[in-house]
Amino acid sequence: MNPIGIFDSGVGGLTVFNQIIKILPSEDIIYFGDTARVPYGIKSKETVIKFSIEIADFLIKKDVKIIVIACNTASSYALRTLEKKYKIPVIGVIKPTVKSIINNNKLKSIGIIGTEATINSREFEKEIFKYNKKIETYSVACPLFVPLVEEMLLDNKITFDVIDLYLQGFQNKKIDALILGCTHYPLLKSSIDKYFNHKIKLIDTAFSVANEVKDTLQKKNMLKSSPHPPEYTFYVSDHPKRFKKLARLFLGFEIKNIKLVRL
Amino acid sequence: MNPIGIFDSGVGGLTVFNQIIKILPSEDIIYFGDTARVPYGIKSKETVIKFSIEIADFLIKKDVKIIVIACNTASSYALRTLEKKYKIPVIGVIKPTVKSIINNNKLKSIGIIGTEATINSREFEKEIFKYNKKIETYSVACPLFVPLVEEMLLDNKITFDVIDLYLQGFQNKKIDALILGCTHYPLLKSSIDKYFNHKIKLIDTAFSVANEVKDTLQKKNMLKSSPHPPEYTFYVSDHPKRFKKLARLFLGFEIKNIKLVRL
Repeated sequence: MNPIGIFDSGVGGLTVFNQIIKILPSEDIIYFGDTARVPYGIKSKETVIKFSIEIADFLIKKDVKIIVIACNTASSYALRTLEKKYKIPVIGVIKPTVKSIINNNKLKSIGIIGTEATINSREFEKEIFKYNKKIETYSVACPLFVPLVEEMLLDNKITFDVIDLYLQGFQNKKIDALILGCTHYPLLKSSIDKYFNHKIKLIDTAFSVANEVKDTLQKKNMLKSSPHPPEYTFYVSDHPKRFKKLARLFLGFEIKNIKLVRL
Repeated sequence: MNPIGIFDSGVGGLTVFNQIIKILPSEDIIYFGDTARVPYGIKSKETVIKFSIEIADFLIKKDVKIIVIACNTASSYALRTLEKKYKIPVIGVIKPTVKSIINNNKLKSIGIIGTEATINSREFEKEIFKYNKKIETYSVACPLFVPLVEEMLLDNKITFDVIDLYLQGFQNKKIDALILGCTHYPLLKSSIDKYFNHKIKLIDTAFSVANEVKDTLQKKNMLKSSPHPPEYTFYVSDHPKRFKKLARLFLGFEIKNIKLVRL
């Protein structure tokens, strides 16, 4: 059976990869990180769609059976275009995340954090309102979170000050849950949790996305059946060494099979 | 007479643009900011060279008389390639900066800060050692400085903590001067100056580059002679609105004539 295709602007999507290999441990996976053009969060809708199509075309040539957009910005801007363009299933991070929190919680007020692009797109809000128009939402873009994570400042004084800078507005909003709407943010989860005194449910998109991928493959009878151990291949558009170094931070283990490909 | 061509990965090169229009107020200028692929500082040499050639080709088609690489990363990696490839003069930021400080100061020890790419290239050190092998150099990459500037956090508690994080190592090195080796950093100059209690000479690359451009055009008899007021045109590969907003921070005034061009 063909591999699962995952893509992200860079290394952040590895949080989704990590969750997928936990619940689908025998599946083969091809991961693409667009490290030549990272980050996507400050770029326009048109540009993010153009980049996403180029990557999806590459994954299609590699015969993937499903495409996972493991990037909130690309999910916000490019999901509908990719869904229309390809015959195989395309899974973004926003719909599965919202579905899971609406199903599992009685929430009245939800906070959303993400990149400039994700927050400006208001895709999380649109999806939430499909289920329940009465839920209140508050959203804030947190542009410094990604560079902080990539500098490995996960639990530093500076990290807490930056968290306070962006999230102090949530303190008096009485939100029940906060969506970590960027694949880098799970690495700040513990610090954000401390900041809110463990009183707010933090929603990590990776779990719901991985579950959605499993459900979709099951329904379509596309789960891998061969007994061979899984194969993971990583393609990056630039700087495999830097990707490898950051991958260790995101995954906690070393990855092999990183290939450079110019789109 | 043809325009001056300036390029940068994004908006940072406007610090160089700003200095050039001060000392060459009648020259026409075409500025290119590669906002679809910004930042360059975390990317590989090969990728930065590829992007720089694409932009220089675009500027050549626009009939520029000189190319100014207003980006330390692109100057570090791509200057030699562009110098060989084109007949018109190509000016980077590193050589003029080093020439001016060596000529004007009796320095024993120089600090250098910049992006990961600029610092890893060691181009500043190579250039300094051409003049004087006895000068001591210390360099540090400061990856959070660019996102801090783009978040307009120029004089904040977080800014000072980040400055301390990167620059505390210089405190006991007794450096005489610190090269601000990234076109974003002049916006942090006043905070860095405070951090060092005004005791270290801070070298802003924009001044020397602008002087070098003037000298080169003078020598080659290529200064604009017509009495028409100057024309400034800005091309960006993405998101003209975001560029316009940040340009105001960098220049202190509003710019017009921003055109989107996909390379």
